[in-house]
Amino acid sequence: MFDTLIHNATVVTVDEAFTILHNAAIGIRKGIIESVATPPIDQPLPPAREMIDARGDILMPGLVNAHTHLPMALFRGLADDLPLMTWLHDHIFPAEARYINPASVALGARLACAEMLLGGITTCCDGYFLSAHFAETVVQAGLRSVLGQGVIDFPAPGVPDPTQNVAVAKAFVEKWQGRSPLVSPSIFCHSPYTCSAATLTAAKQAAIELGVLFQIHVAETRAEREQMEQTHGCSPIVYLDRLGLLDANTLLVHAVWTDATDIERIARSGACIAHCPQSNMKLASGVAPLPDFLAAGIPVGLGTDGCASNNDLDLWGEMDMAAKLHKVQRLDPTAIKAEQVVRMATREGARAVGLGPLIGSLEQGKRADLIVIDTHQPHWTPLYHPASHLVYVARPNDVRLVMIDGRWVVRDRSLLTLDVPAVMREVNGWRVER
Amino acid sequence: MFDTLIHNATVVTVDEAFTILHNAAIGIRKGIIESVATPPIDQPLPPAREMIDARGDILMPGLVNAHTHLPMALFRGLADDLPLMTWLHDHIFPAEARYINPASVALGARLACAEMLLGGITTCCDGYFLSAHFAETVVQAGLRSVLGQGVIDFPAPGVPDPTQNVAVAKAFVEKWQGRSPLVSPSIFCHSPYTCSAATLTAAKQAAIELGVLFQIHVAETRAEREQMEQTHGCSPIVYLDRLGLLDANTLLVHAVWTDATDIERIARSGACIAHCPQSNMKLASGVAPLPDFLAAGIPVGLGTDGCASNNDLDLWGEMDMAAKLHKVQRLDPTAIKAEQVVRMATREGARAVGLGPLIGSLEQGKRADLIVIDTHQPHWTPLYHPASHLVYVARPNDVRLVMIDGRWVVRDRSLLTLDVPAVMREVNGWRVER
Repeated sequence: MFDTLIHNATVVTVDEAFTILHNAAIGIRKGIIESVATPPIDQPLPPAREMIDARGDILMPGLVNAHTHLPMALFRGLADDLPLMTWLHDHIFPAEARYINPASVALGARLACAEMLLGGITTCCDGYFLSAHFAETVVQAGLRSVLGQGVIDFPAPGVPDPTQNVAVAKAFVEKWQGRSPLVSPSIFCHSPYTCSAATLTAAKQAAIELGVLFQIHVAETRAEREQMEQTHGCSPIVYLDRLGLLDANTLLVHAVWTDATDIERIARSGACIAHCPQSNMKLASGVAPLPDFLAAGIPVGLGTDGCASNNDLDLWGEMDMAAKLHKVQRLDPTAIKAEQVVRMATREGARAVGLGPLIGSLEQGKRADLIVIDTHQPHWTPLYHPASHLVYVARPNDVRLVMIDGRWVVRDRSLLTLDVPAVMREVNGWRVER
Repeated sequence: MFDTLIHNATVVTVDEAFTILHNAAIGIRKGIIESVATPPIDQPLPPAREMIDARGDILMPGLVNAHTHLPMALFRGLADDLPLMTWLHDHIFPAEARYINPASVALGARLACAEMLLGGITTCCDGYFLSAHFAETVVQAGLRSVLGQGVIDFPAPGVPDPTQNVAVAKAFVEKWQGRSPLVSPSIFCHSPYTCSAATLTAAKQAAIELGVLFQIHVAETRAEREQMEQTHGCSPIVYLDRLGLLDANTLLVHAVWTDATDIERIARSGACIAHCPQSNMKLASGVAPLPDFLAAGIPVGLGTDGCASNNDLDLWGEMDMAAKLHKVQRLDPTAIKAEQVVRMATREGARAVGLGPLIGSLEQGKRADLIVIDTHQPHWTPLYHPASHLVYVARPNDVRLVMIDGRWVVRDRSLLTLDVPAVMREVNGWRVER
């Protein structure tokens, strides 16, 4: 007896072979996928407490957003189209200094969770400060998360004394390890240019000891690469490698300015990458060599980045952009294919953030993180290849059902876990003064 | 007495100064905008047969899709991620030869109109064959359109004898001129490499005599430019200029491979450009020098292109992509700004397709083509700058009301002019065999 049986679905399993099952059903019990199959047409469906008719729609793994800064949803559209340093120093840093506090990070996280869940994102990998003050909020929203407490060698929200940055991160991890099945705590170093070598190695050492993901922004801009080459005589990636920071539990965010040597080192180490094409485009950082990452076998997830630089948390838009950007960048329409992008947004994203064994595909034994996509709409018609439409036409509002860890969080496009109008009212009341 | 008064709106007028009015109202009579103003707060609203409370949402001009091939909605996602010549010769051309006929073009146009209207597009500028067989369909859908009958020096759907191509186009224009306030007929030459110099000049001469827009795909790929340089010793744009095809009633579609000389010639002639970034990206054609077009004062509209190469008719996606693509291409976050993109999608698009005096902004005397955007959603929260959100977060489903020429075509996100489920059923029944 299943708890839930979802039947009459086109199941895009995103298993290793990218199997697609038609007229298929998925049985869930205790939050676990127990069966994925096309039931015999001449027999009754297996029994379940709850039967969901997917009406022929697509059933697939929930999306994994491999890089976010949840509280920054509060700064959505605050400042755009400005030179990077003006944007950072005149707008984003002052807004963070003035407005980021334990209450506001929880509010921003609620807003971000609402947007992500309604759009089919079931897991996010976050890096920010004051993580202890919004972890519970994310759990209540029902979102699965990897939450990285920020480490930076400057006074930061919640860490006025930078000498305590690694200690605060360790304490956060220790508090949240094993506390909720939905939260995997992590340590997030801001970057190699804002953390000293001592801070970086101490933070990675703590992550190794605690057995958690180590995240870092790296090689985002040309200026960063040039500065590293001047200061350390090597690329940012080689610098991290020399410090011993690259291994299978390290997530490199952006990795835009990477060359063949960097890619070879990343691949050999087993480290993973969060690719954030829209943020890299909007901030004019550059185009990461994604086809080369994939050719080298590096696990790559897709991230929206924070709302200050995108400006939404729409992983469908990220998928579309990832597919198209690299084609035009290389003048090669085969540079990235739709199926590869679907893998990055699910299975590979899960691997990249350290949750590969748990989620990222609809396979027996995995946790039940899944979404149902309404394919009965003009922009989905006709439908020849599911992977094509998932990348080139799907939008957040196409998601009509979302289940995380066996629990329904979205039904009929409505969020069950948060009072969305109340969240929006509170954010609008809070609004940054201009 | 207005026919309709829409009040309590944030009106993004897209007038020359990009004026935004808060708590404003628009009065419409006989399909014309008669008043755009913020009413005095202490007086009753002016009388109208129909009062619409916009609930503080954004009211703006309907979007202008400056380049489409409506019937190709039937080929959405049929073939992707292939080398250009494989895609064209093994998939698209055979599908057109086998499946495009008077009945299928009308069906494809119905599907395309449904998608566009639901997503806030109120005008499209189309180029295809058998235009006479779907013009009435587009009128019935309630969409404003510029419909270009295709001209090509090969046998084409409805024009088996290419020597008749210009005559067929002229006959289409003569039949549709002055017939419907919603349709502006036009002549669409496929390209300088598929039409001879004689055909191009005859087609442009016919367009001049009839006083209609002349459209042409040009400088789309590097191969086209190289071929032109070899054959004619000049760029595709210079070739068209030498033939006398460039003037204010010419719409150049794509114009990707254009240099400073080309841009100077386009600007001097008054010709306009339809920029289709997503199609150019997906087909790996290249990146058009949009910032240089705008700096030269060329009117530029945004186009989705056909569904075989995008794969949807989402002008919001096109806006987002246009803003981000050129930033990263130039490594300059100020290369294109949100307000410029909103202008291209409305006012400048209307100019580019020859409808500038009629539509493209919410100003007294213009036809009432307008949309209301639901801003009360998580991804729109908070809202600091309307232009930023219109470009970086807006999506088709955010459009809740659409009026064209004073007639409601979408209310509460539902299309009033077509039976959408019936259109989808018919398309699914028709579906290309694979």
